[in-house]
Amino acid sequence: MSETRKFLLTEKDLPNAWFNVKPHLLEQPSPPLHPGTLQPVGPDDLAPLFPMALIMQEVTTDPYVDIPGGVLDILRMWRPTPLVRASNLEKALDTPAKIFFKYEGVSPVGSHKPNTAVPQAYYNKQEGRPRVTTETGAGQWGCSLAMAAAQFGLECDVWMVKVSYGQKPGRRTLMRSFGASVQASPSTSTNAGRAVLAAHPDSPGSLGIAISEAVEAAAVDPNASYCLGSVLDHVLLHQTIVGQEVVKQLEMAGVVPDIMLGCVGGGSNFGGFAFPFIPEKIKRPELRLVACEPAACPTITRGKYAYDFGDLAGLTPLLKTHTLGSQFVPPPVHAGGLRYHGMAPLVSACAEQGLIEAASFQQNECFEAAILFTKTEGILPAPESSHAIRGAVVEALKCKESGESKTIVFNLSGHGYFDTSSYDAYLAGELVDYEYPEEAIDEAMRDLPQV
Amino acid sequence: MSETRKFLLTEKDLPNAWFNVKPHLLEQPSPPLHPGTLQPVGPDDLAPLFPMALIMQEVTTDPYVDIPGGVLDILRMWRPTPLVRASNLEKALDTPAKIFFKYEGVSPVGSHKPNTAVPQAYYNKQEGRPRVTTETGAGQWGCSLAMAAAQFGLECDVWMVKVSYGQKPGRRTLMRSFGASVQASPSTSTNAGRAVLAAHPDSPGSLGIAISEAVEAAAVDPNASYCLGSVLDHVLLHQTIVGQEVVKQLEMAGVVPDIMLGCVGGGSNFGGFAFPFIPEKIKRPELRLVACEPAACPTITRGKYAYDFGDLAGLTPLLKTHTLGSQFVPPPVHAGGLRYHGMAPLVSACAEQGLIEAASFQQNECFEAAILFTKTEGILPAPESSHAIRGAVVEALKCKESGESKTIVFNLSGHGYFDTSSYDAYLAGELVDYEYPEEAIDEAMRDLPQV
Repeated sequence: MSETRKFLLTEKDLPNAWFNVKPHLLEQPSPPLHPGTLQPVGPDDLAPLFPMALIMQEVTTDPYVDIPGGVLDILRMWRPTPLVRASNLEKALDTPAKIFFKYEGVSPVGSHKPNTAVPQAYYNKQEGRPRVTTETGAGQWGCSLAMAAAQFGLECDVWMVKVSYGQKPGRRTLMRSFGASVQASPSTSTNAGRAVLAAHPDSPGSLGIAISEAVEAAAVDPNASYCLGSVLDHVLLHQTIVGQEVVKQLEMAGVVPDIMLGCVGGGSNFGGFAFPFIPEKIKRPELRLVACEPAACPTITRGKYAYDFGDLAGLTPLLKTHTLGSQFVPPPVHAGGLRYHGMAPLVSACAEQGLIEAASFQQNECFEAAILFTKTEGILPAPESSHAIRGAVVEALKCKESGESKTIVFNLSGHGYFDTSSYDAYLAGELVDYEYPEEAIDEAMRDLPQV
Repeated sequence: MSETRKFLLTEKDLPNAWFNVKPHLLEQPSPPLHPGTLQPVGPDDLAPLFPMALIMQEVTTDPYVDIPGGVLDILRMWRPTPLVRASNLEKALDTPAKIFFKYEGVSPVGSHKPNTAVPQAYYNKQEGRPRVTTETGAGQWGCSLAMAAAQFGLECDVWMVKVSYGQKPGRRTLMRSFGASVQASPSTSTNAGRAVLAAHPDSPGSLGIAISEAVEAAAVDPNASYCLGSVLDHVLLHQTIVGQEVVKQLEMAGVVPDIMLGCVGGGSNFGGFAFPFIPEKIKRPELRLVACEPAACPTITRGKYAYDFGDLAGLTPLLKTHTLGSQFVPPPVHAGGLRYHGMAPLVSACAEQGLIEAASFQQNECFEAAILFTKTEGILPAPESSHAIRGAVVEALKCKESGESKTIVFNLSGHGYFDTSSYDAYLAGELVDYEYPEEAIDEAMRDLPQV
């Protein structure tokens, strides 16, 4: 039998605290601003939408935040997740590099999203809010919150972007199987939805509209909270359970990482994977933490670091972030989870401070890497995660050229078993790559709010 | 933190031999017969279709068969699989019973089928046959063989029942992502397919037709083998890796099982799970091994133990098996993998010898149990596996009534993430239950071959 393939931790090795990257930053990130007053947002501004425990996690500078036992009890249904040596991929690439991947697709809904859905549902239960609302695009986040809500007996109402509601029936059904209600957005159940439908009866919906509906539904119901699946500090905090496990697993494997890669859309997957390595990065600057984004939505690589809205309608607080402009509508690449104009402020701050770097990839080259991964490692990756695979393949091929035996670790944030129509399109040669002329990017950022 | 939830083995605990149930049987099963001569089938009869190593495994009475290192190297991409304490399900049922499930859905294609696909591909590679052919219905087996073929660089050609080819695009795409060719059956690429199309241009296909096509394609190509995903002795042998892991995991958990349940269609899932417990069953007759089958296809509970063909066209050897008659066409229940008129001869022999028992369930009660499982344990089960869940729930509720704290263990043979259209139908209240009058069963078995 050849070398160990999977590095598995036991439930006892599950981290019992979330890792907070803030104390390690060279400079604290600029605070979110109220869109009306342009003053920093305070806990009271957020209280109608979020339970207080999450608001406190949003602002804490404690180096660690304890994970409640009631959260760990759910997380350990599938955690710790495996770290796998991709030895077949190495062989296929004929590279001297060592490649490892962390596999988050073993969660009940097939991605990393439940890592934050579970604590969000938990704190709502604790603070006596029996109902949660959210939006979802392709459905990864909606399924995760529906799963977590079922665990705590919460009512869960999801507004799913109408075009995805039709195109992704699998995830729609999964949410309902968990007991959630799922409406196509724009819906007739909110003022925001009705207003859109009045103006555009055939609207295919958008994340911006669905966010407005879910926020409105929570705001008018004192028993309800709104939940968000990425971008915010507390969401990234919850995801650090991933990177903390990787720290232990790389020790088990007896290797020191040279390059760590994760795909990046809103930033929670990458942040959760990479932040626990920031202290190491500060000590050992040659360690590279690489955020892999789509060339069709090149937020860090080509966006501007500025205050901007989180949504299209301009209802959210202003966040200091890399942005392509809140009016930027990314082309319909198949990595739907990466189609976001902005970035988690914490990821952006790390990029500005030189702690992480970013690279962008076209979707065809990502699917090509994904198919190679499928044939060699057996798992069909989510189109989002394929960006990290592409990044890893590029680095492994550089090692082949230079003869260096670097250790490359990437996060396989989810599987693609609900995304097979995207693979159909790729295998049929139907996918288009996108490249923006500089003017288009400039144009999209022209209307950034003046702060 | 409450009790341990998952019982995980390491790669070192992976069984290094398959368990052969034959030496433990009270009487050896009757041999397969040649359909022409009615004489027992010999190795030479099978050589055109199967590599010799598999033919030898089909007839061996050795108590264990070594698993080659090259097979273990692939299996440990996902094995050992977890044994999970279903503590949330126990709470929801308010039962004193302890419920555990073995989870085979962590494999690359989401079911137990790769456990035999990998060794089948391995032996073909070893014996210099670079091409494998097979049929598939919903696609579980086709995906598994495609995955295994990719690992060994074999060409893989799958004939997929035409109606499923249209209805299950996800698994069709997954097979192609592994590099397999997938044709809708009946196809124009075989005599068998062309004959059906000539007579019935609109034929939706059937497993019987697809088997004929895959067998023909292998028979006319000396470089090709035909592969089967269930029924045969060597297939069940390969699946015993599941039950052997469960033996160790129950020891880890410090429990002695009272009732073990698996769903049963062709028999490989149940056999692989239950056979390693047959020696224990012989020593301790109160241990119950329960095969859970659909009431719509009640092979063991209502079929006859007799020699019959494995396929509709009568091309296969005659097998001594529980059968509803090879002309029996089960109604279109959503557990497609359980719609088979016959049974693995080894499972049938165990049933005849009182070593296992069988129970049948209607699909609506199975989906009801599956939804309860989804909400409590987070995993959407395959419709097939939901029969084992139903069986476990029934036993747990009996314990609630009697106050007994029995240990119930079932095999969750796969996840249902490719089967969400079935859940849609269930949630919409559209599923029909089937009950056969005795005459219908008698009628179906009227034409059993005279042996």
